[in-house]
Amino acid sequence: MSYTRGFVQNKKSILYGNRGMHLESDLNDTNTFYRLQDRAIIYKKPTPITISKVDYPSRIEAVIKEAYFKTPSTTDYNGIYRGKYIDFEAKETKLDYFPLANIHIHQIEHLKLIMKHGGIGFLIVRFIKYNKTFLLEGRDFLNFLETMKRKSIPLSYFEEKGHIIKEKYQPRLDYLEIVDTIFFKGEII
Amino acid sequence: MSYTRGFVQNKKSILYGNRGMHLESDLNDTNTFYRLQDRAIIYKKPTPITISKVDYPSRIEAVIKEAYFKTPSTTDYNGIYRGKYIDFEAKETKLDYFPLANIHIHQIEHLKLIMKHGGIGFLIVRFIKYNKTFLLEGRDFLNFLETMKRKSIPLSYFEEKGHIIKEKYQPRLDYLEIVDTIFFKGEII
Repeated sequence: MSYTRGFVQNKKSILYGNRGMHLESDLNDTNTFYRLQDRAIIYKKPTPITISKVDYPSRIEAVIKEAYFKTPSTTDYNGIYRGKYIDFEAKETKLDYFPLANIHIHQIEHLKLIMKHGGIGFLIVRFIKYNKTFLLEGRDFLNFLETMKRKSIPLSYFEEKGHIIKEKYQPRLDYLEIVDTIFFKGEII
Repeated sequence: MSYTRGFVQNKKSILYGNRGMHLESDLNDTNTFYRLQDRAIIYKKPTPITISKVDYPSRIEAVIKEAYFKTPSTTDYNGIYRGKYIDFEAKETKLDYFPLANIHIHQIEHLKLIMKHGGIGFLIVRFIKYNKTFLLEGRDFLNFLETMKRKSIPLSYFEEKGHIIKEKYQPRLDYLEIVDTIFFKGEII
């Protein structure tokens, strides 16, 4: 998956061939739209890798010949919105539940710290089979982890606590609309 | 340089062999210290690359066999401090001036936008020859670019407008001490 993640950032054409990457592409398009609208400055972080071999075919060109994917220590997306630090992780699942194995422990710890420091933290999870994408507040995500000792979060929990993100033409996934209602209590800027 | 940047994140031993990488290593150590002290959550972003070939020696292992360094669209460091979004770029120069070619136009545009959106933005520049490291407010950096039509920023400008970052045992480079004085007017938390 990391492979596709790295790949997708650059080979958009291939992207739609890979269902698992629709969410990432939708979010990248959405974030580009938000930047063009000057609404928010949010980016996906590059895929973390360990580079172990690089060739220099020319003085200016460098080609990585051997590298490995690293476990991320933070979430994939962060930036600034309405003067606040915003941070989230986005995942897709083909199942009727969201396997917690999809999120690294460092990423969970990171989300906790972000919220502790006054940032806006959440998850975006797409259930491919139902073509439903939810925003789940970090608070509700952590509550689930602490109270339920389970290996996955059922769709029903997202239906109950999460917020459906509408798919539009532009922005593709208007998740800031939901951030406005839950984190800014809908106040107009 | 990108090569070393990617490399350094993982091969610390090699790092001290490469003078150009001291600043990055000092900042990574500093940010780790800040996180351990629960003072701020700030990370260096992974080096952006374009992956074009990946092998799968085993079902679980993936080895990148061909990849290229990409021009970064944002600065290298961002995170949250005292509830505020913080964003900066860090560079070293062996000269008596800081060549603006060291900073990509996207990174300058990014800093502008961050400040426009209410984030804290700055540069950290080390003059290796003098072993002096400065924090230059984004505002003063942009003023220079707009008023002086030059290809580099002289050391004297950093001496005049910048803020020297003290080197300590821990944290190695206490740049937040300066952020406190200039962006939080020294108020105690």
